[in-house]
Amino acid sequence: MIRVLLVHDECLVRSVLADWLRREPDLGVEDTAWRSAPGRVRSLRPDVCAADLECADAYGIPPLGELRSRGPGTAPPGLLVLASANRPGLLKRAIEAGALGYVDKEASPEHLVHGIRRVAKGERFVNDSLGFGFLKAAEMPLTRRELSVLSLAAEGASVAEIAGSLHLSHGTVRNYMAAITRKTGARNRIDAIRISQGEGWL
Amino acid sequence: MIRVLLVHDECLVRSVLADWLRREPDLGVEDTAWRSAPGRVRSLRPDVCAADLECADAYGIPPLGELRSRGPGTAPPGLLVLASANRPGLLKRAIEAGALGYVDKEASPEHLVHGIRRVAKGERFVNDSLGFGFLKAAEMPLTRRELSVLSLAAEGASVAEIAGSLHLSHGTVRNYMAAITRKTGARNRIDAIRISQGEGWL
Repeated sequence: MIRVLLVHDECLVRSVLADWLRREPDLGVEDTAWRSAPGRVRSLRPDVCAADLECADAYGIPPLGELRSRGPGTAPPGLLVLASANRPGLLKRAIEAGALGYVDKEASPEHLVHGIRRVAKGERFVNDSLGFGFLKAAEMPLTRRELSVLSLAAEGASVAEIAGSLHLSHGTVRNYMAAITRKTGARNRIDAIRISQGEGWL
Repeated sequence: MIRVLLVHDECLVRSVLADWLRREPDLGVEDTAWRSAPGRVRSLRPDVCAADLECADAYGIPPLGELRSRGPGTAPPGLLVLASANRPGLLKRAIEAGALGYVDKEASPEHLVHGIRRVAKGERFVNDSLGFGFLKAAEMPLTRRELSVLSLAAEGASVAEIAGSLHLSHGTVRNYMAAITRKTGARNRIDAIRISQGEGWL
């Protein structure tokens, strides 16, 4: 029996997906929202975490790393993500968190079952249709520092506030913003935020 | 038999939801993405359109009005939406489009089946848990004109570009932006966009 924890922030969708997975006799399925997911991983010790990359809290950034720690002496669960090719920033976060499985939300649901079985064996599973998303994830133009600056700007922080938070001068923050606007091919700061959020960098 | 067209932009979720609905003997279920939905309404003539309010295209604004026109001499389908209380802007759009059913994505999936049956009879169905969302929809602070200005700004347009598009002076656009920032309780223009997108106004 493969113990699966399904993580999705919409209760209605999550319940129906979990029900659908429970039709497979080799899967034991529990489900949870993102905010409770790290605690559920520690208590349930699933073999596989199958997690939607869309997260309703924390400015939309799923706490993927927290899914992969489950106490001393035990292996972390295999991570499978439900992803889409047009959010390469989220794909990049999943790669960095060590996800083994990448199921395209544009694929048929049978891929989810195949993927769970593969990840439970410690094997990779990747939908080919995510290829362009991975390419864009690899090409991600912004540095970690630039992303910090842009994230604060996207929350509505002024140049002075960003400078204060990150211990930078005002001029340095303005230089970062100019570099970000140029690298994202944006027309201005607001356009850079729009582009970066659309691709899932922020 | 109630003919249902399920509209959702994620193929995987849509397929599983449609399968789940097909277990009900009185429902005949077809499914589609938003971009094909208006055409499918015209060809299938469903009794009920059950549509997720999240839309991947058109800056996230679902073309709800187009679901409700299906040619001369025929009644439009009853509209049921899958909604969440924290996107009151999308709820407001559903109200304006004449939706009869409002199912909370945080509710259990059985509500979706009940809702479809009620809407098929021409009756209202509303999950109580959406109440706060409706309250916020009613309190929506921005005028239609202010929303037009803010939408263009959110796409990255400059003051000059917004002025040109809407045939306004630069000063008038700046006055609108100041009013928008004040009314949304935002710290600045970027914060106003963030707040308005978060609530689904844009």
